[in-house]
This record gives sequence, structure tokens and C-alpha cells, in this order.
Amino acid sequence: MNRRGALEIDDRKIFERESPAGRIAREELAALGPRLSEVRDWIGRMEKDGRIGYRALPDQDVRPILRAARRVRETADDFVVIGIGGSSLGAVALQAALAHPFHNLLPRKTRKGPRVFFLENPDPDYLAAVLDTLNLRKTVVNVVTKSGGTAETMANFLVIRKVLSKAIGKKHSERVIATTDRDNGDLRAIAREEGYATLPVPANVGGRFSTLTAVGLLPAATAGIDIRGLLAGAREMRQRTSTSSIDTNDAWRLAGLLYLADTARGKRTVVFMPYATALREIGFWFRQLWAESLGKARDRDGREVHTGQTPIAASGPVDQHSQLQLYMEGPDDKVYVFVRAERFGKRVPIPRAFSGSKTCALLGGHELGGLMNAEQAATEEALHRTGRPVIRIDLPAVSPHAVGQLLFLLEEATVVAGGLLGIDPFDQPGVELSKILTKRELEK
Amino acid sequence: MNRRGALEIDDRKIFERESPAGRIAREELAALGPRLSEVRDWIGRMEKDGRIGYRALPDQDVRPILRAARRVRETADDFVVIGIGGSSLGAVALQAALAHPFHNLLPRKTRKGPRVFFLENPDPDYLAAVLDTLNLRKTVVNVVTKSGGTAETMANFLVIRKVLSKAIGKKHSERVIATTDRDNGDLRAIAREEGYATLPVPANVGGRFSTLTAVGLLPAATAGIDIRGLLAGAREMRQRTSTSSIDTNDAWRLAGLLYLADTARGKRTVVFMPYATALREIGFWFRQLWAESLGKARDRDGREVHTGQTPIAASGPVDQHSQLQLYMEGPDDKVYVFVRAERFGKRVPIPRAFSGSKTCALLGGHELGGLMNAEQAATEEALHRTGRPVIRIDLPAVSPHAVGQLLFLLEEATVVAGGLLGIDPFDQPGVELSKILTKRELEK
Repeated sequence: MNRRGALEIDDRKIFERESPAGRIAREELAALGPRLSEVRDWIGRMEKDGRIGYRALPDQDVRPILRAARRVRETADDFVVIGIGGSSLGAVALQAALAHPFHNLLPRKTRKGPRVFFLENPDPDYLAAVLDTLNLRKTVVNVVTKSGGTAETMANFLVIRKVLSKAIGKKHSERVIATTDRDNGDLRAIAREEGYATLPVPANVGGRFSTLTAVGLLPAATAGIDIRGLLAGAREMRQRTSTSSIDTNDAWRLAGLLYLADTARGKRTVVFMPYATALREIGFWFRQLWAESLGKARDRDGREVHTGQTPIAASGPVDQHSQLQLYMEGPDDKVYVFVRAERFGKRVPIPRAFSGSKTCALLGGHELGGLMNAEQAATEEALHRTGRPVIRIDLPAVSPHAVGQLLFLLEEATVVAGGLLGIDPFDQPGVELSKILTKRELEK
Repeated sequence: MNRRGALEIDDRKIFERESPAGRIAREELAALGPRLSEVRDWIGRMEKDGRIGYRALPDQDVRPILRAARRVRETADDFVVIGIGGSSLGAVALQAALAHPFHNLLPRKTRKGPRVFFLENPDPDYLAAVLDTLNLRKTVVNVVTKSGGTAETMANFLVIRKVLSKAIGKKHSERVIATTDRDNGDLRAIAREEGYATLPVPANVGGRFSTLTAVGLLPAATAGIDIRGLLAGAREMRQRTSTSSIDTNDAWRLAGLLYLADTARGKRTVVFMPYATALREIGFWFRQLWAESLGKARDRDGREVHTGQTPIAASGPVDQHSQLQLYMEGPDDKVYVFVRAERFGKRVPIPRAFSGSKTCALLGGHELGGLMNAEQAATEEALHRTGRPVIRIDLPAVSPHAVGQLLFLLEEATVVAGGLLGIDPFDQPGVELSKILTKRELEK
């Protein structure tokens, strides 16, 4: 039992002899030490040069975000976040993890803030459905694109803006908050022209590292999530991932183990499998972080490398009834990262009844949370006995503080893994061709 | 343009020379012909022996399901489906694909039926949140487990049953519909004892093939989905996948191509990527179908094989901003199956505004649906030019008829792929160890 609210990584099974094929020797991990030190220096240089900003985010002044959120909570019935990818996945993950699962169904009084909707795809049916439900007279729109030129986001925004302007006339401009680059880009220019309220995304924080900027924090605070607690958790994890020892630096350990699993053991896929329904969407956030940061054709010296472990977002126990068969018996090409919450928010006992049923007799008297964690332990052990490599991340609870730790840990581990692979974890050159071809399709 | 409402597969790019690494020669596919005939005979024998029943489902009498659904629609405010894996993923996918995306937020009058909730994980926080929102005095519960002994489902059911019984007393038994085996299992026995209404799951239809039984159809019909249309689509696809030619049998083609991509080209992962938000959950349904059916340690002769292509559920365009970088530049170990809707339900024009912005100038005057499909075409082409193998499934629309075709196509293709691999696509021996260990954890 974790007493001090700190996230902990249990990596013992990946070293144990029950899993010869997937096993990683402690010496191999230790041998990464010198390279990890180089990676640390490389990250430090980028930080010092101002090229990367995600490590500074836990220290930011969140008062402008909290002020904006308070105003929305007091005045709006509905809050629509328009963004995609790095501009949506983090906000969606925070909402799923830390707001009420049926936030939008709760009475306004219980919610204390507006309903929250996300518009990601420029999907006409989905957008029309959002419009079916909005109270346009009391809707605030948060349009989020760092570059200001994301096609999907601007398309959705153009539609929503027109609808809003039809409904409430010229004062619709007071109902838009633009989250974008402080100085540059089309959305910044439009915001100036129209007089929108704005919140900045730091120039040196890329989309997939921007959850702890206004991109993720404004929607979170608007939904009533404690963003100071979130940042406190991130700050604590930054501290703990600033040491230069593989024994104490969780990001080094996690990155080192996944890097070895991928490159030295052929575990081309990493399965991220939380056992708390609230954490499911964090898997999709991680999936972007890991895939887009590490999937690279060339290393930093221009050599062709085609790196990148494929991330899979799973969810326990539901995916025991979907993916576990493949994980247990299929190709041994995966490494498994479980996430467990030691405590759930609610304690729900399972009533004793139908003792003629073996299943009911077994379950009665336990708690639902106990069943969740029993299944997690059993699945981890079953994979381990089959020789498949497993790691577990233990959260003390699904709280802002714990989620803050988890997000920062995963960000830092991703950057460290990028360093070990020798690639640039901050660019995404591979998505350009599709954008160019989309433009051509539209110009036809 | 597809004129007759039929789903079509476009597999041309997987044969074209722009993709030398991923390319599959037409001759290779044709050479599978004799083996596919054997597979057809094997499926035919199992069908004749009554061992498999999914191919008969399109012909079932749905009147008992429609009657039950009508009663729930007329009397209930809330409908809670308790099931997991094969007992939930299909129902969730149908709801997402064919009901209003904000079904539960619509006014009762617009909805015409109850709100619909799914309880999959035995997660105390999620369950408590469902209870926060239910109107217990007008709630109907659908507990779904074919075996009658699924721990997660029975745990959630025991809790909900007690709450319901506290709220409305003895008549809570009238508010339970059990979907389970016709004769056997704990839930059948409990249903008899308590006098629950029941709907059967045919003994020869396994969980992941049960979407077109009451398991998927009762929740769908309760949400107002046209289940006759769904079955008509499935029936049409059954017809079209009963031919013995790779040129006309879509299941043969799809299974054959994915099989060759996996076993002859090292595409160990299949990415299923629909470009319609409504179809996203079908990816998670397919993920179970493909993984659990094909991920097997041994073939039917007992030889150790460890088969199983890893399925990934993606969603376009949002995952262009998350996974595409990896797909374009990472390891060339994936085959891509796009799903496109030729028509969306709504036509939403993108207004012309902010012509100073290149993005806005490009978008203005197009429709959102056009942008979705332009992005799909562009992404498909970008992957193709990079040498990655792509297949596309075109749906005429996201309609019950089209979704029925799609589900049946994917089921049939999965079984055919199992036949080509020489494994049993209908069992799941690999999940037992985790169940045994869970039991032991609980007995501690």
C-alpha cells in the first residue's frame, strides 16, 4: 500500500525468470545508464535553449485559465471544445478521468458548470447532433489550434460560429475563447479581428505535449476539475524524474524497459491497459504521445530507421473479454503496461444472493473495486506465467494529483525513449503528405 | 458511386505497383482459391452439424425482440444493459453507429424510448455514477451473459438488483430481462426462480458472433434502431459471401488479403479506420472479433502456431493527428482497412468567412462530409505512395442496412481467415487462466 500519494512502478515481473522470452535482465537496463545520462543532457540543452517547454508547465500561473473557467461556469449552459488530436485528446482524457462520467446528464445545480462537448472530426452527422442538444443562447465555444490552421478545427468552427451568430447576433464574439499561439497563425489573427478572448499555447510546446497548457486545462477547469492538483502531481513527478539513477527515476525506468522490449526483444507493440474505466481515454492520449513522438523514418542524423513501437489502448477488465485471448496465445510481440488504482472513489459491496450460483456465491461479500483489482492481478499473473513481459503502474487513486503524475511520467518517458532511439520526439513530418493531398482534393 | 445500396470493397491499391513492399500479387490471392473452397466446405459442415449458428441469424424471427423492446420503450425512462465483451461490444457499436450520438440527452419525446446505459466493467465509480442518473422507479435492466456465469456481469447485476429492489420492492423482478442460454447456466436458473422475462442466445452462437441475436438486437431495438433493416443487410451480405469466387465473394477477398498481408508480408497489425464518427465503436467490436477468433496458440491439429494479426481500432480524421505519423514513417508492419460512408446523413456546408486565412479560404463552400472524404482519400493515397498496403470498404451510408452488411462481412471474413490459418475461430482457451487466478484472488 502506497502511503504518500505517489505513483509507483512495479517492474519486478519483467525481470523474473518465469518469463524467459520476454524477460529483460537487470544488467541490460543498468547498461543503459550512460546513454540515459546523454539523453538527460540533450533534454537539458533543449530546455535551456527554450526549444522545449513541457517541463516548465507545472510552474505556470493558472489564474488566467481559472478566471476564464469561472466565467464560463457561471454564465454558460454549454461549453463546446473544438479541437483535434493534440488539441482534444488530452482534454477528453482529463474529462473522462476526473469529471463525473455522466457530467452532461447531471442537473445544472449538481454539475455547477456547463455541459461539455468535444468536436473533433468534421463529421456533419456528429456536428448536427451536437447542435440538436445545445442551448445556443447560453453556449460558449473554445476553439483550439496552436497553429491556427488545422482544417478540421477551422471547418467545425466556421459552422458553429455561423450558427451562433444567427442565434444571438453580433455578441457571439463574446462567446468564443480561442486557445492558440500567442502571436502567430490564422486563429490569432481572427481572434484579434473579432475580439475573441484568448489563451495562449506556448510556442515551444507541441500539440501532444500541451495537455497541461490552456489546451487541456481550460476544458478541465470548466468541468470543475482541480487543475492545481493536477499540476502539483505533475510537478512532483518532474522532481522524481529529474534524478540520474535508473533506480529512482521512473521515466528512465519505464522508457528504458519499453525501449529494450521493443528493440532487443521484438516487442513491437505496447499495450496500455488501465483497470479503471475513468482512465480508458488516457490510453488514447498516450497512444498519440507514443506513436507520433517515436514513429519516425529517420534518426537525428538523417539515417533511415523506421522506429516506433505501436501503442494499443486497452481497458480492463472489458478487454479480457476481447483482447486477452490474443495476448495470451498469439504472437509474443507485445509488452504490457497495466495501470491500477489502489483505491476507487466509491466502495460498492457486492450483495450476497443466489447462493446456488457458484459465481454469485464467490462474488457475494466482496467489493466491486476488489473484483477489479483481483482481475488485474490475475491477468498480469496469467500473462507473466505465459512468458509475456508485464509492467504495472500503481496509482494511489484516480485523483487530479495522481493523474498529473501519470501524464507527466508518460510525457517524460516518451521523450527519454525518443532520446534512446536517437530520433526527434517533437516533430511529425510524416503527416504532411496527407495534408497536401487533402488540399488538392478540395481544390479539384 | 454505389447505386444499389451495396457495400463495396476497393482492393485495387493493395495490388498496385506503387507499393512494392506491401503489394500483394493478384496471382497470390487467386492461388488461395482451392484452400478457400476447403474452408467453405469446412464452414458448411459445421453449419450442417449445427455447431455454428451465426449464418442463420439473419433469418430469425425478431418479433419476440421487437415486442420486448416496444414494452420497454413505452414504459421505461432508463434501460441499463449489463454485459461485457461479446455481450456488450456489439450493442455498444450498434448504438453508436445508428442511434443519435446524444441519445441520452434528448428530451424523452424526441427519443421516443428510454435512455440507454451500458455497464461493462465492474467499476464501483462508474456504477455509482450510473446510479446517480437513473430514475429507478422507471428503469428496466437487461442482464446479458450467455453462459450465465460471467463474473463482472453478475457482480454488476447483483448490485443493481439490490438497488432496484430497495427502490421498488418485490416488483423489481418485472423490470429485469435476462438474455442468456435457452436452457443452461446460472442466469437461466435465476431467471426461472425470480420470474424474469428472458430472451435466448442460441447455443451455437458464441459471444463475439452474437450481435445479431437478442444480445445486440434488444438494446438496438430499444434505442429505436431498425433491426429488420440491419438483418436485411446481413442477409444480403450472406448471399454475397456464399459464392465460390474470389472476384465476387467479399469475405473471401477480405480474408484472403489480410491473411496474405499477415503471413506472407509480415503485416502483423491490421488497422481498422472508419471515417465516420458513428462507426468508431465498430472498430472495437471488430477488434474483439479478429483478436479473439484468430489469436491462437495451436492449430486444429494441435501444433503450436501462435497465430493472430493484432487489430487496432482507429478513427479518421482524428487519428491522422495521432497515429498517422507512425503509420507513415514507422515500421512497415501494418495493413490498413479504411471504411468510408459515401453519403452522410446530414449535409452541412462550411460557410465562407475569414478569407485572409488560407485554411478558411480553402474550406469555405465545401461541405463537412466532403472534407471527411477528401481526408480519407488523401490519407489512403499518402500511405499508398509510401508503399503501405491499403484496402477500403465503401458503405453507401451509415444505415442499418449498410451496417448489417458490414458486420456480417467482418464476421464471415474472420471465420474464413481462421480457416486459412487452420485454427478454431470459435474458441478462446487462453482466457481461462486469468479466470482461475481471479477466483483464487477472491478466495484468499
